[in-house]
Amino acid sequence: MFYLLDLFGVMVFAVTGALAAGRKNMDIFGVLVLAVVTALGGGTLRDMALGATPVFWVNDPAYLIAATVAAVLTVLGARWAARPRRLLPYADAVGLATFTVLGTGKALALGVAPEIAVIMGVMSGVVGGMVRDVLCGEVPLVLRKELYATAGFAGALVVVLIGRVLEDPNLASWLGALTVLVLRVAAIRWHLSLPVFTHQEPH
Amino acid sequence: MFYLLDLFGVMVFAVTGALAAGRKNMDIFGVLVLAVVTALGGGTLRDMALGATPVFWVNDPAYLIAATVAAVLTVLGARWAARPRRLLPYADAVGLATFTVLGTGKALALGVAPEIAVIMGVMSGVVGGMVRDVLCGEVPLVLRKELYATAGFAGALVVVLIGRVLEDPNLASWLGALTVLVLRVAAIRWHLSLPVFTHQEPH
Amino acid sequence: MFYLLDLFGVMVFAVTGALAAGRKNMDIFGVLVLAVVTALGGGTLRDMALGATPVFWVNDPAYLIAATVAAVLTVLGARWAARPRRLLPYADAVGLATFTVLGTGKALALGVAPEIAVIMGVMSGVVGGMVRDVLCGEVPLVLRKELYATAGFAGALVVVLIGRVLEDPNLASWLGALTVLVLRVAAIRWHLSLPVFTHQEPH
Repeated sequence: MFYLLDLFGVMVFAVTGALAAGRKNMDIFGVLVLAVVTALGGGTLRDMALGATPVFWVNDPAYLIAATVAAVLTVLGARWAARPRRLLPYADAVGLATFTVLGTGKALALGVAPEIAVIMGVMSGVVGGMVRDVLCGEVPLVLRKELYATAGFAGALVVVLIGRVLEDPNLASWLGALTVLVLRVAAIRWHLSLPVFTHQEPH
Repeated sequence: MFYLLDLFGVMVFAVTGALAAGRKNMDIFGVLVLAVVTALGGGTLRDMALGATPVFWVNDPAYLIAATVAAVLTVLGARWAARPRRLLPYADAVGLATFTVLGTGKALALGVAPEIAVIMGVMSGVVGGMVRDVLCGEVPLVLRKELYATAGFAGALVVVLIGRVLEDPNLASWLGALTVLVLRVAAIRWHLSLPVFTHQEPH
Repeated sequence: MFYLLDLFGVMVFAVTGALAAGRKNMDIFGVLVLAVVTALGGGTLRDMALGATPVFWVNDPAYLIAATVAAVLTVLGARWAARPRRLLPYADAVGLATFTVLGTGKALALGVAPEIAVIMGVMSGVVGGMVRDVLCGEVPLVLRKELYATAGFAGALVVVLIGRVLEDPNLASWLGALTVLVLRVAAIRWHLSLPVFTHQEPH
């Protein structure tokens, strides 16, 4: 079940990468790279940091194929897809929830400390989008506005804490995913954002 | 033979990195970093993703030395090198061909699935240049124009397919390298490029 | 002793990351990311390249906690901290010295060639700041001006050479750290910088 959600998340993230490439007038290869990097970047950095190599998509080509298919569909369908795109942020929330929860779970399964598992979960969810934005020559959106990574952080925390208290990792994962989803949907609906830290050097 | 071509590719890629640093008025250290990152970045990410660590240049200092020497020669010779620079894109094509073929071969030798080996080959050839451009504050050239990564993709595909059909990895490597070279030289000569995906968000 | 200096270095680097985030009006999460990336990025890439995974901060949450605490203190205290900030470059020099020396030592302990150990030491000291600048949408400062990485390079060289000659790694580390500190303080005081390589393509 989580495996299917994971592939769904990969496809949704790949769509956001392909659309970002389209905004920058990239060629077809650029679209593919942005799609793949957005979809797989977070989990790749997590696995490299954990030493869980080869990284996850090397041993299961389904991830790469899902991202590629999503990129192709985006290029072909972008013109007619005004309606689906309005749903994109919600689909993205499902992807964020899945990536975060699975990333946290994978780190816990490898026996790392709980606070590190939280970081690994957040990393799985947000690093792909950060690399996408850097490749587009922009300061990553996730660093600047909206409750995005914070939703992931809260979800990862729930996975770790509930998993500890109830000793039921499966239930903890579902509750964690629900936490991400609820926070993220609320953030989209009511434009919630974190306070900004503004600091100028004195001369 | 491929080892010498590999070192040649490292030097050529290092030259392109050093020249990019020069366009941005970087200091001598910046020139070295850009040269090394461009030359070794692709293979480094490939090895980290595959878990083939320590990465390739850790165990063989020749790579680092080749990149450093190339950077120093570029700084000393940039002024007088109008003619060699016209040959640079062709030398770069040799580097791309070598990196792609060796990267694909290394991945296959580690036993990954064929489609993953193709990705690893492409990654070996293009990631260095992408990081170079990001460090220069630019959207990577390879995402925006010219048949570059596509030439690598075709070559990696040839390595995998011919290697499977003929069961002669050495011949497959040479044919793959030839594919990259031919496509790349054709792209330089006739300014071939991929179609662009342009997409603007509706308001 | 070096462990405490290491945590001190992590906190100082995290402060520079948090201040950079403040200059870009990032939100609180962005501040945390910049702080953590600046503080832990160099050692993370070093460990991933060496295959020394899981990377150092996975097994010792103290690093992550130190970076987070430093980020929070920066946000809370930035307003009143005109005086401490004048000391920041000097504190940063201590961090650079510690990271460089420990990074070189870790690589040597893993048995890599001396020139590779030097690179790993420099990488430990400068990569975090480079990623910080890229995430801020800027060409990394360290590539453009001031004697910064060069100080790290000299210190790493001292660690390797003295360690070889005297066969006393501890003394070599202290001398290496001293080298970085002296060069860096001199560079701050007298605005020392490397020569710049300027190169424009002819049309």
